[in-house]
Amino acid sequence: MIREGETVQLTNGKNRFFIRLKRDEILGTHRGNINHNDIIGKNFGYKVKTHLGEEFVILKASLYEIIMYGIKRKTQIIYPKDSAYITVKLGLTDGYRVLESGIGSGGLTIVMANAVKPSGKIYSYERNETHLKIAIDNIKLANMESYVEFFHQDLEESLPENFFDAGFIDVREPWHYVENIYNSLKIGASLGFLLPTTNQVSRLLEELQKFNFYQTEVVEILLRHYKPVPDRLRPEDRMIAHTGYLIFTKKL
Amino acid sequence: MIREGETVQLTNGKNRFFIRLKRDEILGTHRGNINHNDIIGKNFGYKVKTHLGEEFVILKASLYEIIMYGIKRKTQIIYPKDSAYITVKLGLTDGYRVLESGIGSGGLTIVMANAVKPSGKIYSYERNETHLKIAIDNIKLANMESYVEFFHQDLEESLPENFFDAGFIDVREPWHYVENIYNSLKIGASLGFLLPTTNQVSRLLEELQKFNFYQTEVVEILLRHYKPVPDRLRPEDRMIAHTGYLIFTKKL
Amino acid sequence: MIREGETVQLTNGKNRFFIRLKRDEILGTHRGNINHNDIIGKNFGYKVKTHLGEEFVILKASLYEIIMYGIKRKTQIIYPKDSAYITVKLGLTDGYRVLESGIGSGGLTIVMANAVKPSGKIYSYERNETHLKIAIDNIKLANMESYVEFFHQDLEESLPENFFDAGFIDVREPWHYVENIYNSLKIGASLGFLLPTTNQVSRLLEELQKFNFYQTEVVEILLRHYKPVPDRLRPEDRMIAHTGYLIFTKKL
Amino acid sequence: MIREGETVQLTNGKNRFFIRLKRDEILGTHRGNINHNDIIGKNFGYKVKTHLGEEFVILKASLYEIIMYGIKRKTQIIYPKDSAYITVKLGLTDGYRVLESGIGSGGLTIVMANAVKPSGKIYSYERNETHLKIAIDNIKLANMESYVEFFHQDLEESLPENFFDAGFIDVREPWHYVENIYNSLKIGASLGFLLPTTNQVSRLLEELQKFNFYQTEVVEILLRHYKPVPDRLRPEDRMIAHTGYLIFTKKL
Repeated sequence: MIREGETVQLTNGKNRFFIRLKRDEILGTHRGNINHNDIIGKNFGYKVKTHLGEEFVILKASLYEIIMYGIKRKTQIIYPKDSAYITVKLGLTDGYRVLESGIGSGGLTIVMANAVKPSGKIYSYERNETHLKIAIDNIKLANMESYVEFFHQDLEESLPENFFDAGFIDVREPWHYVENIYNSLKIGASLGFLLPTTNQVSRLLEELQKFNFYQTEVVEILLRHYKPVPDRLRPEDRMIAHTGYLIFTKKL
Repeated sequence: MIREGETVQLTNGKNRFFIRLKRDEILGTHRGNINHNDIIGKNFGYKVKTHLGEEFVILKASLYEIIMYGIKRKTQIIYPKDSAYITVKLGLTDGYRVLESGIGSGGLTIVMANAVKPSGKIYSYERNETHLKIAIDNIKLANMESYVEFFHQDLEESLPENFFDAGFIDVREPWHYVENIYNSLKIGASLGFLLPTTNQVSRLLEELQKFNFYQTEVVEILLRHYKPVPDRLRPEDRMIAHTGYLIFTKKL
Repeated sequence: MIREGETVQLTNGKNRFFIRLKRDEILGTHRGNINHNDIIGKNFGYKVKTHLGEEFVILKASLYEIIMYGIKRKTQIIYPKDSAYITVKLGLTDGYRVLESGIGSGGLTIVMANAVKPSGKIYSYERNETHLKIAIDNIKLANMESYVEFFHQDLEESLPENFFDAGFIDVREPWHYVENIYNSLKIGASLGFLLPTTNQVSRLLEELQKFNFYQTEVVEILLRHYKPVPDRLRPEDRMIAHTGYLIFTKKL
Repeated sequence: MIREGETVQLTNGKNRFFIRLKRDEILGTHRGNINHNDIIGKNFGYKVKTHLGEEFVILKASLYEIIMYGIKRKTQIIYPKDSAYITVKLGLTDGYRVLESGIGSGGLTIVMANAVKPSGKIYSYERNETHLKIAIDNIKLANMESYVEFFHQDLEESLPENFFDAGFIDVREPWHYVENIYNSLKIGASLGFLLPTTNQVSRLLEELQKFNFYQTEVVEILLRHYKPVPDRLRPEDRMIAHTGYLIFTKKL
């Protein structure tokens, strides 16, 4: 039975809406309005009608779907192929305190928050106020805001020392902040970066060598989709060929 | 401060041991013995000596490292590039009940258990007793045994109905069990499979079409490592080119 | 100095035309007409004006450009990444007689003809008359028609026996014709196939096993483009992820 | 019928020898000697015995096989996946004069010579005498020495001006020679480079911008092998993940 506070998706086959249910709230669509109350208490798979009579099926909204289709994107998002690997590679687990900057559209934040909840927290630093606002809305849609602390601030400003169990940095010139980040991490903590160009990767690797990091790795993840047709199985014609290079290291 | 019950890694630069600390236990190495008591209470980064005087550094053991370097492998493991994506794609989160079969060496079980803890559980079905035993040892090494229920049984035998929030199947001929699996899942639950050959993928896709599944996808994940040298950045010469195809679908 | 009979490209920066020069002929563009005579005798890099005054630069037209941008495409073409590898893998060289079927848009025919000229020949069998006509036009544009024999016929019909030094087959169900093809090849001849789906590859491999072929291989070629910006070097965002599987074998 | 001067391969299933047939010459193997005279005049598929009675089958030797299995390698060779694409991308055709440097083990030289024969030529510049000697032997094995001019000299030394129809450069620091190379090319000529690291690519791109080149591209070619088993079709477990980046450009 669907409860208030849950995030669900509604689809009429053509359109798809993601909403977090709140009693008495109204979802406005170009096909008419839907009262959240008509969804709360129903089961997944059931249908609901707009005041104009258009039917929408109520479906579960997985984190994957919320990130890929539900959130507002003001920036390039970090795709699940990358955010999933980041989460495992950083060893995120219930209870971890994780440094993040910038927040982007919150896609990675959601995946990481899910990995450290219920007792851990993502500490997300973002200097761009617009990005921060959109990301907060997105994180609320995914029901993860209790596991994120937001800081409208730059990585140049002071960070708590020897505090984070892990960190992930997605800013344009991370080499400026390595010392600050290094100090904020606990010994043994894993740290990751995403960078789109090879020049940035080289520049960052140079900087990392000045600190007591070890097991530095650079990887790239490629996701290839196939057409799911049993008797004509083949890869899709086109694919996303690049999102970014991932750099991982550890504080000794 | 390192506590009893924690899993740590010890390295002398050449060898690497993963142990879960238990008071009064002894780790035997070809370089001499180490008493767990000498590690408990220390901090990461400190050194410990064997009774023959060889020094080992005590390092944190991330789930990633435990899976890649710590666990005993009797079967092909599911690599983090795949298990991470599986976890996000299935939408695993604290509290989920997840069907798994077979257990393999427990590599995926560990990653999934980490994603559903503390209040969720992996229900792992394995008919091969040897695999099951090794997997249990591996899962204990990773400190995840409280979040896994083990069943020494086949997918042909009865499963709880309408019970699981998600499922992942890694057996040779999964098409035999689709009906049983389908019934065990809740509506909206995500289900995944790993299969190494294209023929198996085709055969499974055919079977899935007989049931009320939707949003079926087939993907493949490629991980490319780079040499992390700032002024000679380039991909590694060789890579793992194939682990398996991942198939995802959902119960309507 | 540019001569009659040569193929050149003309570009005004926005549009690109490929023409094979013939005295007194006129190229009509939406920016006005260009007389071939105005190009013959000029040098590459020079400009020519339409009768409406629009300027076009005369550039060399490489086979690569003719195939990628010059030929009319009625069918999926075989891209240079594949046709180049096919040519080397089949060992094509001056003097070879090569079986081809179907002709598609002639993209592969052009590359293979270039590899066997001046004394070799491509024997191209195509049952679809429209495809054949377009392909002939394309092959003429590339100046390769002297090295191709065209047959408006199916692979079911009789082929010369023990005649071809190599062969390449790009038809939907090549397994029907393997015996006929086998007999047409000389001992030691290399044979290749392109097939888009895994099911077709499996079906063909099965059939090949019935004949005295050896060193059968299946490969796939991926071409990844980078943005050629020195200080922001990175792969393009999207790529062609699949054209087809290439199967190679040899007659013993 | 096999003639003197031809290159053939001999195999006993385990070992493989590539020889260019010369009357009265003897091939010494650890399984005994074979007189070339015993092969000349035979047909492919026939068997020949060593003086110790070991049987070897006589097979055709394709350029592909000579390069992959026949030539001596003192340096990293350029693989057919790359050399094939280079040949098509440079538009090589009968009659072309092609600049090459360095010669490496001659693998690319062989493929390019095959593409420009009978009336074209590769002009290969190599400063390392040992590499040059080995490459010449390899090129002779492939029967291509009539189509190659060898120069024991550096790219710093003078080159003929406005002379080459195309060029391919595989040296460590090609940026030092761009002016010299530029001047040696005809207008419209295509030029290629192979470089293993991203830093080299960036450095070269910077240099190319100083000259009147256009249509500069950077690509990478990945070749994926599949196990050719009809009912268990799947990619090989491991693959060569990187040979080098290919850079192509044209002189305006």
